[in-house]
This record gives sequence, C-alpha cells and structure tokens, in this order.
Amino acid sequence: MFKKILIANRGEIALRVIRTAREMGVKTVVVYSQPDEGSLPVLLADESVCVGPAASNASYLNIPNILSAALMTGAEAIHPGYGFMAENPDFAEMCGEHGIVFIGPTPESMRALGSKAGGREIAANSGVPTVPGTGVLESVDEALLSAKQIGYPVLLKASAGGGGRGQKVVRTQEELRSAFGQAQEEARLYFGDPAIIMEKFLEEFRHVEVQVMGDGQGHVIHIGERDCSIQRRNQKLIEEAPSTLPDTLRQEILAAGVRLAKFVNYAGAGTLEFIVDRDGNYYFMEMNTRIQVEHCVSEEISGLDFVKLQLEIAAGEGLRLLQEDIVLRGHAIECRINAEDPNKDFRPAAGKIDNVHFAGGPGVRVDSHAYTGYVIPPHYDSLIGKLIVHGDDRDHAIRRMKRALDETVVQGPKTTIPLYIKIMENPFYRRGAVMTNFLKTRMEM
Amino acid sequence: MFKKILIANRGEIALRVIRTAREMGVKTVVVYSQPDEGSLPVLLADESVCVGPAASNASYLNIPNILSAALMTGAEAIHPGYGFMAENPDFAEMCGEHGIVFIGPTPESMRALGSKAGGREIAANSGVPTVPGTGVLESVDEALLSAKQIGYPVLLKASAGGGGRGQKVVRTQEELRSAFGQAQEEARLYFGDPAIIMEKFLEEFRHVEVQVMGDGQGHVIHIGERDCSIQRRNQKLIEEAPSTLPDTLRQEILAAGVRLAKFVNYAGAGTLEFIVDRDGNYYFMEMNTRIQVEHCVSEEISGLDFVKLQLEIAAGEGLRLLQEDIVLRGHAIECRINAEDPNKDFRPAAGKIDNVHFAGGPGVRVDSHAYTGYVIPPHYDSLIGKLIVHGDDRDHAIRRMKRALDETVVQGPKTTIPLYIKIMENPFYRRGAVMTNFLKTRMEM
Repeated sequence: MFKKILIANRGEIALRVIRTAREMGVKTVVVYSQPDEGSLPVLLADESVCVGPAASNASYLNIPNILSAALMTGAEAIHPGYGFMAENPDFAEMCGEHGIVFIGPTPESMRALGSKAGGREIAANSGVPTVPGTGVLESVDEALLSAKQIGYPVLLKASAGGGGRGQKVVRTQEELRSAFGQAQEEARLYFGDPAIIMEKFLEEFRHVEVQVMGDGQGHVIHIGERDCSIQRRNQKLIEEAPSTLPDTLRQEILAAGVRLAKFVNYAGAGTLEFIVDRDGNYYFMEMNTRIQVEHCVSEEISGLDFVKLQLEIAAGEGLRLLQEDIVLRGHAIECRINAEDPNKDFRPAAGKIDNVHFAGGPGVRVDSHAYTGYVIPPHYDSLIGKLIVHGDDRDHAIRRMKRALDETVVQGPKTTIPLYIKIMENPFYRRGAVMTNFLKTRMEM
Repeated sequence: MFKKILIANRGEIALRVIRTAREMGVKTVVVYSQPDEGSLPVLLADESVCVGPAASNASYLNIPNILSAALMTGAEAIHPGYGFMAENPDFAEMCGEHGIVFIGPTPESMRALGSKAGGREIAANSGVPTVPGTGVLESVDEALLSAKQIGYPVLLKASAGGGGRGQKVVRTQEELRSAFGQAQEEARLYFGDPAIIMEKFLEEFRHVEVQVMGDGQGHVIHIGERDCSIQRRNQKLIEEAPSTLPDTLRQEILAAGVRLAKFVNYAGAGTLEFIVDRDGNYYFMEMNTRIQVEHCVSEEISGLDFVKLQLEIAAGEGLRLLQEDIVLRGHAIECRINAEDPNKDFRPAAGKIDNVHFAGGPGVRVDSHAYTGYVIPPHYDSLIGKLIVHGDDRDHAIRRMKRALDETVVQGPKTTIPLYIKIMENPFYRRGAVMTNFLKTRMEM
C-alpha cells in the first residue's frame, strides 16, 4: 500500500479520502487554494500545500503546481476526487510520466469513455442500448436530417460535456436551425471542444446508475445501482440505493453496466449512468470514470469502503471481491446539503456558517467539511455536506431522513434542507414514482 | 403502536428514544428539570414538561410529577431510559395502575432480578454459574465465616446496588470486621437498603454482557455479546461488540444468558452481565432490566434498532425476530465521551461547551445531546455523548475509532477523548488483552 498520497481536491470529497487514508495508515497531502486555507481537509491532512489563488484554473486545475506538490512531498499517488482533474486523461498521463500513480482508470479508458460520442460507440460494441442519437454532427443540415429520423423533441449535447451543462432541448426544425451553432459555440466555451451530438429527448425518465469496480485485468463487479432522479437543472440533489425498479429490469441494467465496464477493461471505481423511461426501456448515457458524490449510499447498503477499494486497486493489490461477495442490505438515501436558496432558483449562498449542528443516532452518516465558523468561499460549488441515512427498507430510510433533516441546523447561509424535508413528505416521492422532472411537476417550485 | 409516549429521562438517552419514536411516527413528551430546559431533547421532543428543580429526587425521580405529566399529555407509555426510574419496580407498577404502559419488563421480573441476591438465586435455578458468594449476610460473624469458605480477597456488595457503587474489596479478617458495618451503612445511604452480599473478588477479569430481547411469552433471543472491560472505578468507558472471546466460550455465555432470561419469562430489552476470568471461567453477575448506555455497538453489528424493538414489545406487537434472523456483521466500538478530566482522577468538568464538532464519514455514529453553547449542568452524570464506530473487524474498528477521535473537537470542558486516543494506540488494547484493571495496569494512569 502507498505510504503517502496527495489529494487533488477540496471540500467534503477531500475529507472523505483523508478519512479512509487515515484508517489505512496512509499519510495524506492535501492541496488547497488560498481561500481554502482554513478548511477542514487542510486542518486534518498530514500535510498541505497551497497551489494557487481562488480561481480553480489557477489552483485545483493547475497541473504543474499539483504535480510539483506531489513530487515535493514524496506522495506516491494522487487521488483526484470528483470534478476538477478527476476525468482529465492528460493529467492522469502526466502523473504516470512523473512516476506518480493516478488513482483512477487508465488514460485510455478515460479518453474512450470521456466523450459522449465515444461512450455511445463503446455501448454499441458491448451490446448496451443507448438513446437513439448520433455521433458528432458536422453541420446544421446533418443535424436537421438526424432530428427528422429520431423525431422531435431532440437534445443537443456537448460531446465533451458532463454534469448536465451544455445541453439544449430542441422541439422544432426552426429551433434547431438557430440552436445548433449556438450549442457548438457554448460547447467550445465550456469544454474547449465544439463537438455536438444529438439524442432523442425524453420528457420523463429516471436516472439510474450502476456502481462498478474493476481491477483493470478484466475482473469487474457491480455494487448495485442508485436512483438519482431528483435533480435541479440536471444536477442531482437526492440519491438512493437501491432503486425502486422491478428486479428483472434492475438485474438487466446491472448486467449491462458490468458488460460495458468489462469491454473497456475498467480499473477502479466507475459509474455507468442510464436513463429509464416510463415503459421500462433503459439507455446508457455515459460513464463517470471516478468516484461519485453519491457513492455513500452504495457504501451504506454494501458495507464497503469505496475509497479503500480505489486505493487497493491503484496500489496493485487488485480487487479481491467477487460478485457473490457483494451483499446489499436495506435502503440508503443521500441528501446533498447545498448552500443555496431553493426558493430563489437555487442561487448559491456563500458566506459564514454561524452555527452548524448535524443529525446523529442510528443509521445516520454525515460527510461534510462544514463547521461552525466556516466561511463558504464563493468560488466553488455550493455543496457543504451530505446527509446519508440507512434504514431497513425505503420507507424506513425516508422516515429516518426526515428525522435527521429535522435535527440538522445550519445557521447563516440558506440551504436546501427545507426543500428536502418537503420532498420526504411528498406522496409521489414516498411512493417512489420519481422522474427527473419531479421538482417541476410534483413540487410546485 | 402507541400514538404518544413520555420519556422519563434526559441527555443522550432521551434523544435516542426521541429519534426512534419520530421514525416510527410516535409523538414524544420529554420531562425535564429546570436546568435542562434548553437541552436538545427538550428542543426536539414534540412536547416537554418541567417536573422539578435540578436535584434528581425532585425531578427525574419525582414519581407523582412524572405520572402527572404523562396523564396530562395523554402519553400512553413511559420510556424510562437507563438510570433514574429505569429499574424501579414500584414506578413500573404505578404506571400500570394509572393505565400507562411501562416500556420495560414486568415489575415482578425487575424485583426478582433487581437485587444481587435474587439474581444469584435465579442464576442457580437456571443453571448459570455465579461467582462463589453468599446471599444477604445478617451479621459480621456470618460474613467472617463465609469469607473463610470463599477465600480472601472478597467483595462486599450492596444487594440493591448497581453501577459499581457500594462495593468494597476486603483482603483480611481484620478489614472485614471493620468494613462490614460500614458497607451496610453505605448501602442504606445510597440504595435505601442495608442488605449486603459477599462474592469472591477476582483481581483480573473481563466484563462481558449478553444483550437479550424477550416477548414476555417465553420467546427470548440474544443479539450477541459486548465486552465492556475498559472501566474506571467500575464505570464503563469503552465497549465493543463482539467480544474477543473464543467462539465456544462466547456461545456458552450467550446460551447461559438466554437460559436465564427465559427462566424469568423476560419481556423487553435486557442485559446479562458476566465476568470472565483468565482461565475462561464465566460467572453471571447481574441482569440490567433496561436498555444500556452501550446498546449502540450491538445495534451497529446487528443492524437492529433496540428502542424500536422495545416499543413494539411494550405495545403488544411481540418480538417477531427469531434467533436465526440475527446476523452480526463486523465489529463496533463505543467510547463514552465524558466531560471529566482523566488526568485528575476523572473529576467531572461541568460548564459551557464553547465549540463541539463531531466526527463523520463512513462507519461513524454519534449519539450526543451536546451542541455548541450547551451548558453541562453539574447535577447529573458527565456523559455528553457517545462516539460509535463500525468496521469490518476489530482492527478496522480500532483504526476507525482513532481516526474519529482525532476529528472530534470539544472546546470548553475537559473530556475523556485524549485518554481514548491513547487507548486506541495501546498495544495491549489492540491485541484485545483487556481486563477491567486495564487503566491501572496498562496505562500508567
């Protein structure tokens, strides 16, 4: 096992990695930007190195500074967390060139799966259905022809995109004519790549994702699936495991996820995102080649520590678990506690946390870098913590989450907690009848 | 199920009961003493009733006021927690007379098991070994004769005692002569009953206890055992489940516990305390006819909610679990966070908590009524919270506990946290070679 690793991230995921590393006796170096100097990961890591000012480009995306920090501190490996450098194959490659292990899949897997177009091709080759759609569209005429074949409404997506950004719903030929160039421009702006693909747009669907672990030697297991359908602007808010899908459909999707991950000889933790329509058709969307924010719900029902598995695989210890070793128990739900105002279109609410008090008791897990007196910097995402509960079944987990949310106190910034309390009481949510348009159609937001 | 229950307790156990009640949709009324007005249970319960001033006798032991509070608020049942009224059969009886369900065993079981002498007799009748000892001793001459038969050193114990109070080690005839009357006097003073029994004193032993649940109809199951050997002045500090006993011995003790609980047709949650000597002899000590402080470690490895089971049994829903339903996974450890100074003989440290920040992340559970700004009243015990971890095995749990302790911040009063960090690093503790004299012999206290 590594003696020392560097964590190229911030906030709760940096803390998450520190926790497992400490339990494994692995020393940690965390990098930080100037405004994150007083953050909990910096306070708790064995070492910390400032890699630049607030702007992510100058700090958390600053490859030379991050690599220098690793070399300077003698870190043998880098854990990228999620976001920032987590899905950057060039960074992974550069780590390798400097003799540093990138804790994640190979740059080749990341490249193959990193674009939506590439993902669709791999899915096709491994016999996994994708939403009717196209490869990269070269011209508006090609787009118009494709849309005619697929049928409106269609979705324009940046091939290099992710996290729901750079997506456009187009309902008519006229809309498509004006939207296509605009979409290319935005894709170039956001992701440095103007390539656009088109998919059939489904008005209502569930977001279901498969958690896999692979050893890079052809051995891949799944650790169940998660339902992440409660979203705002394509950003997940609440996730749960298992999903409420019928068991045969669940098994089919799990098998499809494993098949695809095996096809690319996947190494480490990964997530295959699917959408499932009302009729039970499922389509592969994309693979996230990293640990997810919502990995905790799968940890809770499996009793496994995914960061530990990541470290073991990256350190060459392989993946000793077989599929039959995975026993899933009960039901887990995660609410992402964001410092934002759900009544004002989720406007971020940075600033000082005057008081924070988290829930406790049986079946409650808190993953948060927030503390009383912490000043949330305005430069990064608004996630200040995750409240995770584990119960005997879905109903128990919902009641437990409601109880835990009621106990949680965050004074200072507005948070999404009041919204989650309402969701836990919502009859549609309680019934599990949840699609990605839930907030719009079921919550009178 | 009950619609509303009253909680006749304070602190973390009151909060513990509120949590489960909320998850079950059961309304809660909490009683409180004047200094506890701003406490977390009072803030979180659906209703609260002040039952008197600070002194326990005038509030938490004030039977008329507590019963009035229950009748006034329409509570159908009373959960006594631990301590205070939890093992008072007269109180249980009075609840019944007022049409209120006492959440616990019958007054008859409590009476039968409540005295050490009675417990020894029941053990003998159910074929469970007890430490060589006596029934109630009438005179110093009888005591001298018994000590000669048992062999010095012997232990004088208040028959009505508990929690390690009212115990005296006697090593010679001369000591016994002077100690006997004194012990009677103290027993009368502390427990209102001068009855004294004698037991062989074992210099070194483990404290192992069996968690049982019974339905009062003859069905009794165990939910594993706990090792609670780390103590100061006979008060538990650290508990774990399972114990590190060899499996055959463990199974024997578990079977003995179930046998004894079946013999008294036990109803509800109970704990049978055993001592285990170096040679693997085990002796029944006493049964605690209530939920224990340390129940959480058994909840963690079993995935069960003991307060829920208590409520179900008390509400007449029975105990649906069979022994074969109980699956124990991994290893759990609890550290009792006491506001006291371990370097000053555990002197209680009441006062304001200027800042408290608990650990989080995978496998960490916090049961605490402490919050930033909370003023610990000097009138009650010094427990301000329990830190519980669950890991794959004992070694993992120890590493996780160490990590969680390192993360925990309590500013203001001194706490036992620094001591626990040292214990987690202690090679004897890590090896599981732990007897009740651990602090004295292995820690240079």
